[in-house]
Amino acid sequence: MKKVVKFGGSSLANAEQFEKVGDIIRSEESRRFVVPSAPGKRFDGDTKVTDLLYSCYDAAAKDGDFEKILEEIKSRYNEIIKGLSLTFSLDEDFQVIKENFKAQIGRDYAASRGEYLNGKVMAAYLGYEFVDAADVIRFDKNGNLDSEKTDKLLGKRLSKCENAVVPGFYGAKEDGTVTTFSRGGSDVTGSLVAKAIKADMYENWTDVSGFLVTDPRIVKDPAVIETITYRELRELSYMGATVLHEDAIFPVRKEGIPINIRNTNRPDDKGTFIVESTCRKPKYTITGIAGKKGFCSINIEKSMMNSEIGFGRKVLQVFEDQGISFEHVPSGIDTMTVYVHQDEFEEKEQQVIAGIHRLVQPDFVEMESDLALIAVVGRGMKSTRGTAGRIFSALAHANVNVKMIDQGSSELNIIIGVENRDFENAVKAIYDIFVLTQM
Amino acid sequence: MKKVVKFGGSSLANAEQFEKVGDIIRSEESRRFVVPSAPGKRFDGDTKVTDLLYSCYDAAAKDGDFEKILEEIKSRYNEIIKGLSLTFSLDEDFQVIKENFKAQIGRDYAASRGEYLNGKVMAAYLGYEFVDAADVIRFDKNGNLDSEKTDKLLGKRLSKCENAVVPGFYGAKEDGTVTTFSRGGSDVTGSLVAKAIKADMYENWTDVSGFLVTDPRIVKDPAVIETITYRELRELSYMGATVLHEDAIFPVRKEGIPINIRNTNRPDDKGTFIVESTCRKPKYTITGIAGKKGFCSINIEKSMMNSEIGFGRKVLQVFEDQGISFEHVPSGIDTMTVYVHQDEFEEKEQQVIAGIHRLVQPDFVEMESDLALIAVVGRGMKSTRGTAGRIFSALAHANVNVKMIDQGSSELNIIIGVENRDFENAVKAIYDIFVLTQM
Repeated sequence: MKKVVKFGGSSLANAEQFEKVGDIIRSEESRRFVVPSAPGKRFDGDTKVTDLLYSCYDAAAKDGDFEKILEEIKSRYNEIIKGLSLTFSLDEDFQVIKENFKAQIGRDYAASRGEYLNGKVMAAYLGYEFVDAADVIRFDKNGNLDSEKTDKLLGKRLSKCENAVVPGFYGAKEDGTVTTFSRGGSDVTGSLVAKAIKADMYENWTDVSGFLVTDPRIVKDPAVIETITYRELRELSYMGATVLHEDAIFPVRKEGIPINIRNTNRPDDKGTFIVESTCRKPKYTITGIAGKKGFCSINIEKSMMNSEIGFGRKVLQVFEDQGISFEHVPSGIDTMTVYVHQDEFEEKEQQVIAGIHRLVQPDFVEMESDLALIAVVGRGMKSTRGTAGRIFSALAHANVNVKMIDQGSSELNIIIGVENRDFENAVKAIYDIFVLTQM
Repeated sequence: MKKVVKFGGSSLANAEQFEKVGDIIRSEESRRFVVPSAPGKRFDGDTKVTDLLYSCYDAAAKDGDFEKILEEIKSRYNEIIKGLSLTFSLDEDFQVIKENFKAQIGRDYAASRGEYLNGKVMAAYLGYEFVDAADVIRFDKNGNLDSEKTDKLLGKRLSKCENAVVPGFYGAKEDGTVTTFSRGGSDVTGSLVAKAIKADMYENWTDVSGFLVTDPRIVKDPAVIETITYRELRELSYMGATVLHEDAIFPVRKEGIPINIRNTNRPDDKGTFIVESTCRKPKYTITGIAGKKGFCSINIEKSMMNSEIGFGRKVLQVFEDQGISFEHVPSGIDTMTVYVHQDEFEEKEQQVIAGIHRLVQPDFVEMESDLALIAVVGRGMKSTRGTAGRIFSALAHANVNVKMIDQGSSELNIIIGVENRDFENAVKAIYDIFVLTQM
């Protein structure tokens, strides 16, 4: 049994958090490969080490007093080292960093030091081997991950370790230039490590007890999703749910390695399992509710359009020609509606309308803005009759005007269009009927 | 006040029916312009005069004994004439018809004689002027209606009449060649006359008391629709409801002349009013339910398709290239479904699938056949919250599995996809919840 355990910044913000992490890792022998982030905020208003590093590097560029900021960063690490009673020093590392900052060898390098240093501390604390991500995560000349080389390098290097700490977020090009993933990229490192060592599980430890059924800014203390499929996750995340770094899914999904989102501060909570597929019935009929505001609908009417071969294609052509992607195309009889992102559409509105008139000679074109789309997602919906009925009864009850409904053959989601101002109420109403009422 | 009154074949099948028609016309002075069809069936198993005329003409072509059939037709009219105690003879007309049938001057001519002769009888019976449609309904060289010329000819000729009978179904080209509309075309004649004389109302008298909320083959004795807009009518008729001849709508719709569908056998019933728009609230939230079987869905899945500009357009392009029109394109996230007519699609299935694979490289394509689409149509739905909730709760209650939902911005209809075998149950369930329960 091999597990990769990745810890987010808030799980490693100070010595106290490090100790929790240590307890978690030591409680299971299988937790052999650790991917740490840089120390996050210790309290509200605190600054993440990564942000301090950027400031520091930028100060060095302007010949400012970057050493003062570097000292602040160093004190963050020393506070942790002291708190853990380690006999271990980062002095040499900070000397190198100072030189490199002066030499301005790269902003990615600067940002990556948060994870690098935290990895060193973690390795010393756990007595695990430290593996510099620059040696095992490979980027190509254009700064894109080279998955194949990375997989080989990681596999080769880690096969020699009983256990190891691989800092998250960065790697290097063939020539040694340190390169980072986009923000949140430690998730990706953890996933790459899990794939390379063929882990049985990729545990992703954060400060929440898993993915929530819906946005906690809309619904207070929403329920945690026990098990979610990659497919459901992708749908919820597309519709705005904050989840893992998108690129973190692909490597483990391909290998069938489940991800387990856990809470460092509540290690007994089972968290959320992300799996390729499962025969486990979801606890509620729906798995999650996500949504976004800021859509716009273009409603095109033309008598007999259904019998005009090519009508729909031409309409979509107009949007494509203007570089606008569409979200949904619900259609009635003699009417077709195109949902687009308002910000993409607004500046090209007139060209699109003119294009539609030119290409398909509609009877009538009407636009509506300030619309929101809500996705109700769940593998359980397919086998549960009446899901749509419950959704729309609940929305009616909440006085929400349903502008659009789209449910295709996958039956894994229903997309609902409402006015922006009804968005929160609609999400609440759907949450209530499926989770609170639990009918 | 001027009304055009059109009577269908069953309203004029025999003398008894003629008398009902006479009573109707005489009961309102405004019923000044009458458009009769040819005599229809007098009883189950009887043959319509138009069908006899086709047989007779074809028999003449094969040098068969067409005169016997012509005698049968003549006896139909004489039965009516005798039954109405008219001193009036069609001998001369039948002599001309016999000559023309021998000379094989045209199948359209043959078919048109049913209306022509019935118009003569009607004019004699009412004491109205007879206006031969060949003189006032004009077709172009290709056999298409010449609306402009027809409007002028009709307007000029009828402005001189206090009242008149214009037989339905036919007209003539510039050179006098008699030409007919497609079957049911007397509806079109009535509409053209109404437009030309700027009628206040076009009454279309049939053997039913108006349009029914749904198909009487599915729901026993469905309620009659009191008022329906042209738009709603078009939607229901597109989805399979049997209504007026499609071309009958356009002339009067343009002029804002309402159509009133009435029942010759129950003249006190108010029937159905077809109007351009109305502020009259419909009696039920929904105006009508119609549907069709025999659809097929092609479900295309591809990760990240939403961010791929042109994806949807390319998919529709494949269908267009094969000459297949689509009905609906519901979409989720990473999934897009295309609904098409099964009979159109089946023979080109493999080309379409291959085309989709070539053009958009999907992750997955899946097809499902034997699906039905149901349109729930109603102008009242927009202002009534909870319509969708009631529909889908009713369907769940009836154990109907909803495969697809499509509701666009017009909010005048909701399209629902179900399996063929659930079709009747679904229609019944929706009818019951809106009409019988009348909530």
